[in-house]
Amino acid sequence: MEVREYIDQHAAEFFESLSQWLTIPSISADPDRRADVARSAQWLRDYLLGTGFPVAEVWPTGGPGSEGLPAVYAEWPAADPAAPVVLVYGHHDVQPVEPLEEWDSPPFEPVQRDGLLLGRGASDDKGNVFFHTLGIRASLAASAAPAPPVTLKLLIEGEEESGSLHFADLLRSQRERLRCDVVVVSDTGMWAADVPSMCVGMRGVVAAEVSLRGAERDLHSGSFGGGVPNPLHVLADLLSGLHDTDGRVTVPGFYDDVRPLSDFERGMIAKLPFDEKEWLTEAGNSGAAAGEVGFGTLERIWARPTAEVNGMWGGHTGPGGKTIIPAQAHAKLSFRLVADQDPAAVIAGLRQYVRDHTPPGIESTVVATEQGVRPCFSPVDSPAVRAGVRSMERAFGKEILFTREGGSGPEADLAEILQAPLVFVGIGLDADRIHAPNERVDMALLLKAAEAAAYLWDELAATAPELTAGR
Amino acid sequence: MEVREYIDQHAAEFFESLSQWLTIPSISADPDRRADVARSAQWLRDYLLGTGFPVAEVWPTGGPGSEGLPAVYAEWPAADPAAPVVLVYGHHDVQPVEPLEEWDSPPFEPVQRDGLLLGRGASDDKGNVFFHTLGIRASLAASAAPAPPVTLKLLIEGEEESGSLHFADLLRSQRERLRCDVVVVSDTGMWAADVPSMCVGMRGVVAAEVSLRGAERDLHSGSFGGGVPNPLHVLADLLSGLHDTDGRVTVPGFYDDVRPLSDFERGMIAKLPFDEKEWLTEAGNSGAAAGEVGFGTLERIWARPTAEVNGMWGGHTGPGGKTIIPAQAHAKLSFRLVADQDPAAVIAGLRQYVRDHTPPGIESTVVATEQGVRPCFSPVDSPAVRAGVRSMERAFGKEILFTREGGSGPEADLAEILQAPLVFVGIGLDADRIHAPNERVDMALLLKAAEAAAYLWDELAATAPELTAGR
Repeated sequence: MEVREYIDQHAAEFFESLSQWLTIPSISADPDRRADVARSAQWLRDYLLGTGFPVAEVWPTGGPGSEGLPAVYAEWPAADPAAPVVLVYGHHDVQPVEPLEEWDSPPFEPVQRDGLLLGRGASDDKGNVFFHTLGIRASLAASAAPAPPVTLKLLIEGEEESGSLHFADLLRSQRERLRCDVVVVSDTGMWAADVPSMCVGMRGVVAAEVSLRGAERDLHSGSFGGGVPNPLHVLADLLSGLHDTDGRVTVPGFYDDVRPLSDFERGMIAKLPFDEKEWLTEAGNSGAAAGEVGFGTLERIWARPTAEVNGMWGGHTGPGGKTIIPAQAHAKLSFRLVADQDPAAVIAGLRQYVRDHTPPGIESTVVATEQGVRPCFSPVDSPAVRAGVRSMERAFGKEILFTREGGSGPEADLAEILQAPLVFVGIGLDADRIHAPNERVDMALLLKAAEAAAYLWDELAATAPELTAGR
Repeated sequence: MEVREYIDQHAAEFFESLSQWLTIPSISADPDRRADVARSAQWLRDYLLGTGFPVAEVWPTGGPGSEGLPAVYAEWPAADPAAPVVLVYGHHDVQPVEPLEEWDSPPFEPVQRDGLLLGRGASDDKGNVFFHTLGIRASLAASAAPAPPVTLKLLIEGEEESGSLHFADLLRSQRERLRCDVVVVSDTGMWAADVPSMCVGMRGVVAAEVSLRGAERDLHSGSFGGGVPNPLHVLADLLSGLHDTDGRVTVPGFYDDVRPLSDFERGMIAKLPFDEKEWLTEAGNSGAAAGEVGFGTLERIWARPTAEVNGMWGGHTGPGGKTIIPAQAHAKLSFRLVADQDPAAVIAGLRQYVRDHTPPGIESTVVATEQGVRPCFSPVDSPAVRAGVRSMERAFGKEILFTREGGSGPEADLAEILQAPLVFVGIGLDADRIHAPNERVDMALLLKAAEAAAYLWDELAATAPELTAGR
């Protein structure tokens, strides 16, 4: 039986099962829903065992005393022990549902309408996880083999929507069982239903707080104005100087490790039907695009690093006036990073920059407020990406374009801790309204994704020598 | 009888009466002390009548329904109706006394110690008002005339320490009775007990709030960072650009009306024994002086205009990080002004500056948050200042130097509404601890001030043709 035929025959049953999973309100950010997150994990484990996975387990997360939002782990070994090992990553927890009154139907009572399946998690990420259960069965049905052509591992976490706080620890403590040659991330999207595409990179991020101090106390600006440095002026100078007139970040060494966009990737990005006016509307009705000179908007938000001031404050901020020279000034900064920038190196550069821009009479401190997230990037000509593209091309019958994402979740941890390349296969759409009321998924696309997933194991198996060369 | 002899003979009685006045806790900022402010006004009116003023009245301030902090008005006409009319300005309300525990003796139980009179108001401003009562009696005793050589008017307000909210209205409504040829301001200080000096100018001030808006809502910096303008970046650019590399304010037209410091005045300022290190300690242990290139610290804080950012805020200012491009950014600005800058013209220049520095995609607004205070300035070669200097030279037997003040109270209203030049005669010292615990006044200086005041009426009468030329 062909993959497509198998999928068509089992589509109704597939959506019925997915809908059952979607009734479990696994909201990880809500402490009152922890039991539901656990129930969602158990449901998935049971379903995976039913699918045929010989191993499926619920893994608690967090250390002793730290209440966990459990992950699900499953494993289906290939017949050939030398076959590539593939780990699929996704998550089974979902976003909160407020404002409830804006939902057309209850978020945890999924309904089908006009080819859409509506409900919280339908796209992000239960739908994008669940297509693998149909894909593997279709793959086995088509090959009539008892085991997949690659060793398949699934790791579906339960705390992605609340920051993946314990995920890196979980990866480290289970490194041996999670060992793999490639990670398939099933938590991204495509450009549009009729423009199939694959994400090949996510920006990282690192944040810091800069504080400046002048006098010991706020000074009367009548008595002292014009006589001593004003920390707010110094902060304005410092933040203004963070970008040059071309919109490039002036932190020392900032671009040293940035991997340039290849002409090929720029060409692929240019093929995307991008409507900047529409995009500006989505961007809170922003009045104009802006940023680094020499790059298009999509290039800037996906493939170029940034420095952003996320907040700043100092002096009198309440009603009315207060004629002071304030004692202190503060700013919160974050940097979006692209391959191969290192968060620690960027913070070191920032410290240097702040030192260089602190005049006499002002004391400055820089506190890195968040552990950085490394950027991740999968070269478009890498074996895993090529295999992923071929499987999607077979399913969609179209050229697969490339996108990137401007922010990232725990993907960089997967690549770094498991030391494996990433390939992103997901069919989320902007139209899916993830994180918002009336989340939905395009049911036809979900079946296409299952089909691509069915082909993916063959395609990856076909590149075994390249994939396993790094073992 | 000589002026000095009269003053010496009546010194004990003078301090006794002043001490009695100081027992009245006329704290205008404290709603519970309004009756005491009224009592202080009544006490002064009665005392002035006893001194010989033919007219002394308590003037309520504020309109109907607005509870007033009364002023005292007194008048003593010269025998010659063509003689100059002199209005003495001061105030009888005092600052709050907290923290009470830091007072060595109760603030409203004045005591004499080591040549000092201690108590709230001893210097600011009851002491500096009260020396006129002794001065006028000494003047009359020395001349053996029944009336002073100038028509003397006193206006002693009761709400200076709480912002002089109704003072301008009072001046306008009583403009006819307050008509004068010169205003003697008795609410300023000298450089030091052994460096007698006269204030000749006060900076004005005008304030505004600048607001910038980008998107309709805060944007996720992962999705949009690098793509749209960040209002905080624009605000930093705008505030950083407010000063050029020489520390000069770049607001269009800002310096057009600035009266340059004369070489004479710069020379007089240079004669003041200024210890910058000590001044920096007073300035909240500031680490360095800073400001407009080409001017000394005293010149900058007294005679040069400034732009100060008093507060700024935008985006995430709470604990932790939030990777957003904020929708809004705000700054509170104030400008210290010198003669002959016009507050309205400066705000117009600021609006122009903000418009010029608002890039596409950002909307800016400027709201002037306070009615401006005009700067005031009395040229050192003007008739009133020369008369004041001569009277102080006779009392102190020393060259009188010139100072200015960096901020101002209601003095500019006096000059503007009454259309009269100002001359500042006061003997407050930095050491007086005004507005702080243990306020004191140097008793010997207060007697010198009374002596200078006694000479002042003769000196002003001697310049009658010049003073009254403008009638």
